[in-house]
Amino acid sequence: MNISALTPAEARELIRTGQWTKPTSGMANGYIQTNLAVLPKELAFEFLLFCQRNQKACPIIDVIEAGSAVAALSAADANVKTDIPKYRIYREGKLTEERNEVTDLWTDDMVGFLIGCSFTFEEALMNNGIPIRHIEEECNVPMYQTSIQCTKAGQFEGPMVVSMRPMTEDQAIRAVQVTSRFPSVHGAPVHIGDPSKIGINDLNSPDFGDAVTVKDGEIPVFWACGVTPQAVAMNVKPSLVITHAPGHMFITDLKNEEFSIL
Amino acid sequence: MNISALTPAEARELIRTGQWTKPTSGMANGYIQTNLAVLPKELAFEFLLFCQRNQKACPIIDVIEAGSAVAALSAADANVKTDIPKYRIYREGKLTEERNEVTDLWTDDMVGFLIGCSFTFEEALMNNGIPIRHIEEECNVPMYQTSIQCTKAGQFEGPMVVSMRPMTEDQAIRAVQVTSRFPSVHGAPVHIGDPSKIGINDLNSPDFGDAVTVKDGEIPVFWACGVTPQAVAMNVKPSLVITHAPGHMFITDLKNEEFSIL
Repeated sequence: MNISALTPAEARELIRTGQWTKPTSGMANGYIQTNLAVLPKELAFEFLLFCQRNQKACPIIDVIEAGSAVAALSAADANVKTDIPKYRIYREGKLTEERNEVTDLWTDDMVGFLIGCSFTFEEALMNNGIPIRHIEEECNVPMYQTSIQCTKAGQFEGPMVVSMRPMTEDQAIRAVQVTSRFPSVHGAPVHIGDPSKIGINDLNSPDFGDAVTVKDGEIPVFWACGVTPQAVAMNVKPSLVITHAPGHMFITDLKNEEFSIL
Repeated sequence: MNISALTPAEARELIRTGQWTKPTSGMANGYIQTNLAVLPKELAFEFLLFCQRNQKACPIIDVIEAGSAVAALSAADANVKTDIPKYRIYREGKLTEERNEVTDLWTDDMVGFLIGCSFTFEEALMNNGIPIRHIEEECNVPMYQTSIQCTKAGQFEGPMVVSMRPMTEDQAIRAVQVTSRFPSVHGAPVHIGDPSKIGINDLNSPDFGDAVTVKDGEIPVFWACGVTPQAVAMNVKPSLVITHAPGHMFITDLKNEEFSIL
């Protein structure tokens, strides 16, 4: 099966019917995939404000209001409670369970946030001839907690998590241009070069994901990462939080290219 | 007095001490000025979500959380309850009062939204040699209600209000480029040319502001306007809303150019 040629609706149906339970990387090429974070309604304003204040790390693609289960603006025909291959359930900030659907848990007093992910700008980078090392090495992107503090909103605060892609200096210049076109999906890098300047001691020991090879003549390029809002939300220890499992994203009907501003 | 050369802090002090009570256009050149909308806390999530879903019309620059009076991210030394030359008070959606300060009205259960205004991209247009007709004619920008519906959020819904600037076709192309650099302060135009396509019957009869001359060989260029969120908020008829009076903006410490993404 050529999963890259599936329409978003076809991909979601495979997932909903249990025929696809693996990560969604490479499915329905060209369409926005998102992180999911579902929180109790009483935290929704502060969390939305946190995302608004930290847009590079927390690019909101859609918000599913309390009492609704429909991602009206990004995938009106989808069922967000069943159309992700794997969900994670956190209680009081602790992972307690993984599931294939969350129909009974997502009640009318929960608000769902769909947050952009790096697949969008990685596709743009590859279209520009910039290779993505973790895709070449078939592993997860390396992610690091940094010394960059997010802008606080209510109870939500904490350090920015970044993802890293090594490339040549020339490629880094082009990467700044290419990703600047997508300000609402992480946008331009937050740092280039010396990792210690943003509090990263060892590139070979990422806090999340896998280490990748940095070749001679390459520099690390760092982007704000959508893991940030989840990490920050867990610090608040809400009674219940539902998220996607890493790599198991929600596939929307929105095209990546619609999110470029130029 | 050369008001364009004032620092934002100097301009705000003139306003706070009652030495400046007029519109703020042309003050503290180069710095972001904002609209103000203060709403009861129970409406804050839905209003923030409305702004998030309609970013071209409602570009959030800062949010003053309940219990605070400090625009921490945009003008930490300012007093937003006194530093605007003229405020308007709306009760149940009706204008009931104008005032020079709102210290007693802005209570701990109100949330303040600072929303970007068109001064930012007008400065960029003028720096690119594109004349702004309403500045040449020393009147307010013409604004029109359109047939473009905003994306609903909770109780907040209604038509987009646009502002219009006439220019030549060549200037319109350059204007698209220049304002695309500022996606978080209204961004690119929403329409160029035939006004009837967005429900405007007569350019000479704006719904807000003043009509301006459209010369032979010019086309109208329309941008989403920051009046939109206020108009939409009034439809909900909140018990109390505090806004700036038209043209009497809040002057922040943020530079316009910081909001360009390229």
